[in-house]
Amino acid sequence: MTGSSETDVIQKVNFPRPRSFFTSFKSDLKETFFPDDPFRQFKSETNPLNRTKEVLQYFITILEWLPKYNLRLFRYDLLAGITIASLAIPQGISYAKLANLPPIIGLYSSFVPPLIYAIFGSSKDLAVGTVAAASLLLASTLGDKVSIKDDPALYLRLIYTSTFFTGIFQAALGIFRLGILVDFLSHSTIIGFMGGTATIIILQQLKGVFGLMQFTHKTDLFSVMHSVFSQTKEWRWESAVIGICFLIFLLFTKRLMEKKPNLFWVSAVAPMVVVVVGGVFAYVVHGENHGIQIVGHLNKGINPSSLTKLNFESKYLPVTIKAGIITGILALAEGVAIGRSFAVMKNYQIDGNKEMIAFGIMNLVGSFTSCYLTTGPFSKSAVNYNAGCKTQMSNVVMSVCMMLTLLLLAPLFSYTPLVGLSAIIISAMLGLIKYKEIYFLFKVDKFDFCVCMAAFLGVVLVSMDVGLMLSVGFSIMRALLYVARPGSSKLGNIPNSTMFRDVEQYPNATEVLGILIIQLGSPIYFANSAYIKEKITRWIEDELDTTNSKGCDLEHLILDFGGVISIDMTGIEMLFEMQRNTAKRGIKVALVNPRIPVLEKLMISNFIESIGKESVFLSIEEAVEASRFMLNQSKDNINNTGPSTTVESNSIVTGDTDIQTI
Amino acid sequence: MTGSSETDVIQKVNFPRPRSFFTSFKSDLKETFFPDDPFRQFKSETNPLNRTKEVLQYFITILEWLPKYNLRLFRYDLLAGITIASLAIPQGISYAKLANLPPIIGLYSSFVPPLIYAIFGSSKDLAVGTVAAASLLLASTLGDKVSIKDDPALYLRLIYTSTFFTGIFQAALGIFRLGILVDFLSHSTIIGFMGGTATIIILQQLKGVFGLMQFTHKTDLFSVMHSVFSQTKEWRWESAVIGICFLIFLLFTKRLMEKKPNLFWVSAVAPMVVVVVGGVFAYVVHGENHGIQIVGHLNKGINPSSLTKLNFESKYLPVTIKAGIITGILALAEGVAIGRSFAVMKNYQIDGNKEMIAFGIMNLVGSFTSCYLTTGPFSKSAVNYNAGCKTQMSNVVMSVCMMLTLLLLAPLFSYTPLVGLSAIIISAMLGLIKYKEIYFLFKVDKFDFCVCMAAFLGVVLVSMDVGLMLSVGFSIMRALLYVARPGSSKLGNIPNSTMFRDVEQYPNATEVLGILIIQLGSPIYFANSAYIKEKITRWIEDELDTTNSKGCDLEHLILDFGGVISIDMTGIEMLFEMQRNTAKRGIKVALVNPRIPVLEKLMISNFIESIGKESVFLSIEEAVEASRFMLNQSKDNINNTGPSTTVESNSIVTGDTDIQTI
Repeated sequence: MTGSSETDVIQKVNFPRPRSFFTSFKSDLKETFFPDDPFRQFKSETNPLNRTKEVLQYFITILEWLPKYNLRLFRYDLLAGITIASLAIPQGISYAKLANLPPIIGLYSSFVPPLIYAIFGSSKDLAVGTVAAASLLLASTLGDKVSIKDDPALYLRLIYTSTFFTGIFQAALGIFRLGILVDFLSHSTIIGFMGGTATIIILQQLKGVFGLMQFTHKTDLFSVMHSVFSQTKEWRWESAVIGICFLIFLLFTKRLMEKKPNLFWVSAVAPMVVVVVGGVFAYVVHGENHGIQIVGHLNKGINPSSLTKLNFESKYLPVTIKAGIITGILALAEGVAIGRSFAVMKNYQIDGNKEMIAFGIMNLVGSFTSCYLTTGPFSKSAVNYNAGCKTQMSNVVMSVCMMLTLLLLAPLFSYTPLVGLSAIIISAMLGLIKYKEIYFLFKVDKFDFCVCMAAFLGVVLVSMDVGLMLSVGFSIMRALLYVARPGSSKLGNIPNSTMFRDVEQYPNATEVLGILIIQLGSPIYFANSAYIKEKITRWIEDELDTTNSKGCDLEHLILDFGGVISIDMTGIEMLFEMQRNTAKRGIKVALVNPRIPVLEKLMISNFIESIGKESVFLSIEEAVEASRFMLNQSKDNINNTGPSTTVESNSIVTGDTDIQTI
Repeated sequence: MTGSSETDVIQKVNFPRPRSFFTSFKSDLKETFFPDDPFRQFKSETNPLNRTKEVLQYFITILEWLPKYNLRLFRYDLLAGITIASLAIPQGISYAKLANLPPIIGLYSSFVPPLIYAIFGSSKDLAVGTVAAASLLLASTLGDKVSIKDDPALYLRLIYTSTFFTGIFQAALGIFRLGILVDFLSHSTIIGFMGGTATIIILQQLKGVFGLMQFTHKTDLFSVMHSVFSQTKEWRWESAVIGICFLIFLLFTKRLMEKKPNLFWVSAVAPMVVVVVGGVFAYVVHGENHGIQIVGHLNKGINPSSLTKLNFESKYLPVTIKAGIITGILALAEGVAIGRSFAVMKNYQIDGNKEMIAFGIMNLVGSFTSCYLTTGPFSKSAVNYNAGCKTQMSNVVMSVCMMLTLLLLAPLFSYTPLVGLSAIIISAMLGLIKYKEIYFLFKVDKFDFCVCMAAFLGVVLVSMDVGLMLSVGFSIMRALLYVARPGSSKLGNIPNSTMFRDVEQYPNATEVLGILIIQLGSPIYFANSAYIKEKITRWIEDELDTTNSKGCDLEHLILDFGGVISIDMTGIEMLFEMQRNTAKRGIKVALVNPRIPVLEKLMISNFIESIGKESVFLSIEEAVEASRFMLNQSKDNINNTGPSTTVESNSIVTGDTDIQTI
């Protein structure tokens, strides 16, 4: 077998003509911001009229689903809509209290935003409403700047303003396709943050349960505990007893749903029952005289305009923008994730960026109509899904129910006892502390567990934004650490095969004497090039020790680039330096399977030229073959014996043609 | 051919027993902080006495090289030492001026630190001294807090204090093996930063060249230009003429060295010539009366102690710590990089972390002995190398020369004209603006070019720290973007081979009908799991379109995990979700070649269980084989025909045993 017949068989590496800057830049941009290629469905359509229609339908989803809507679907949506409305009333009041807002704002917020979402949103299962975590975060962020007691009107205006910024921010994220930002909230961060938030929200309810009048505005464990235990004399046992009864009732209905999923409506209606029973009870026994505080007067009528109430004073701008952005990201993370989960279950697609635009418009319009931050809360959406909703119409039904409530029934809710609301919140929050998942994290990935605990403890012990930042910071640090230490390994040949695998993972893999094969991790960047060089150098030295002891020379270094997807200038410089270094020791470098973006750069920078195009191979096997051929040649020159039998390249590729002919 | 005979041949994936947390944590820690395994040389030594000796020699390198030192080596080091001393005097004075320090401090700084480095440092070619960039940065950082004119004594004390912090910080980085931090300064950042700094340093010299008395303390282009052109009436032509003459002389000697490298000493001695000629000239013509400012009085005597001058007042602590850390990182980046470059040229190893400790001790001791920040400057080290230095002894020789200068000759340098120093600085700085390398960056990697320009423009237009932060920020953003979009690709079979490669890169690669093969990029993290899921879903849909049009079903999804080195909890959740999703569509998932750290997590989290151990393969080929076998079986059930001939696994592995027997 001669060298020439061998190279005939060897597959050629495809050396691309380097793409122009704009081609590669465009493709990078597309990959970063349009990985899902949202517009491809229009590309096939040539008729401009149809195309316009399709584009409109894409952005205003109601145009897509309403024409196909029928009465059969409506029956389902009607039931689901009424069910979530019965949940929306107590939750709306409770969470508004959590945000230190008048309870009526909570009801307003379940009227307009669901309508807007029904027009633009693409999830069929999401139920729109306010959420506990964002409500509390809003209160704690704005509460630092404005005292709710001293100037409740100003506080309310700032709430609207930050909702306005949330809307702008969310829509902008969607329009500029920056959904990528939400990706930086990891699963562990969200579990930890939600758990921590649920904990502090439950702690906050101690105020309602013990019927306290004075309470701290801080959210951390120590402040709340101090606040509760410094006024033990003010505790009202009546309030506590009622609270515990309600809580047991709510938890019992939840447990019932877990056992018998088709009794979901019992659990969905339970909060409403608490509100009604509690209200009647408070009215009958004159609860206020026995330490049972009530919600207080509620006006009839639907949302007034709040357009003129937006406050853009430069004094408050930083805090409203900050509150808007942080709560906006949080709301998006929850809403988009939940929308996606249900879409997976029902097997339809959701475009995250489009959802963001829908959330953005919803909050923008909300800020003009006396609503505060809304998103797709998990509890409500789950009830919606279980109730059998079919389209966004269930949100419209809920919205109509809320309108009727606001127009006719609102004053009836003024007797709702605060302790009842506290029980509702506690029961909702207990489900958010996912200790099983936290234990699972601990078992599978210690670093993720740390990220999660950073969020949890940060929220519980310091504050919500500190917890969030800490956790995101840890996550980013991990990502950077990955880039700094991308993991490369020494490969050996798996016996009886042509495969080359990590010798640490497959201890039976045998190294080829005189040839060092290294698989590089991706990317090769500034942050790791010193490390990679160091590591390769160590391997070469180890190999030299081994080969020299066996009376042989290390002559070939084969670098498997198959997994390297990106390289930067520092990385290329490192390769040059390494090549100079190995050349001095008489070691030849070969590259295996470089990918297009990497190969392009290696060509433009002349690295390929410096090692020679003939030293780039498509597979490790071929590189090893070629190296062994050269090794044998050099041996021949010394020993004058014929080359030992090499692997027949032919035998490797036999019969494989039928892989394509199947 | 039956299924069982096939599985006999197929290589088994090595399912490891998950390592305990501490084992994997220890190995991660080692990989992150001890990638170079610095202590392995002691492990083989069993005699405790020898071991202690080796450890001592490791940390105090002079114990290693001094015993082997001889007169022959000293001849070389003596010449090199005298040469760099002749460069150290003018550079010391110039850079001290740049840092707004009394010139004598610059001379002090070339006496003690080189001695310390000779004891602990491991580079044989590094020449210790002050550097321009760090000097200017020190001045601009501290100058913001303390006015040099109003309180020069306090300014000096703060300089010592920040040098003290630099020492502590550098040593700590080395001791805690945090050399990784320096890795985050990319090649492009350093080119841009150095170029920008050189530019503003040259601009600063306009003060000296035009003989101006008043000058701005800011470093940005606009402030300096305003300062120069607002006082055109103060310009002194005498000063400018002399400056230009000196500059032409210096540039000429540099050019000479480039043409004839063995005339390096001409270029090395040229600054000294400028100082001497300039000094004599200024003395003779009474330059002060003609607008030629001179350095002024210099005291005889070696470094006084500055131990009592360190200032730890809480008022100045933030600024001194900040200055110490930023200049410390910068000095390390330059010193370590230069040490490494020369080590590569002479083929010896340098431990970056050990070097950091050496730099740290050097600056710590320097701060006690009236020195300011020193490192291994490029210009001086290059001269040292060219002069043929053999060991750290050349630093000792330079140090002795400086001592003699300080004791005997210092007053002679008081007549050195400032314009001469400016010419020396300009000529040194011109070499640092590497326009060719910047153009190369532009050609090869546009993003690196942006990183470089961010540093350059940031430094020139705003300030040195803004430029540095901006550039590092960009670099980190790029690393994060990489993690967010790790690049995966669809694979096809290269005709006449068993290889599977990216179908975009190799358009002739053919896909296998009914089987979708995807190579995943690394890592699979929170930041990219939504993206990966999205991308896989799109591929599945595209594939379904294709296969359905051919009257066939997509039944297998093969994920190549060979390049995936790390996965986190969010990634695992994504895999579970994807698996549920594909299972609904009747698509079977197979994994190929998962690596140990990934496989461990997939096992603990029961993902492997959920897809079945039999669905994990060692190579794509085997996975395709197995899938095709199943596809055929399902076809058989319909068509009742025999399975089509599949690739004989045997033929693939024939003869390969002699790869190990070579």
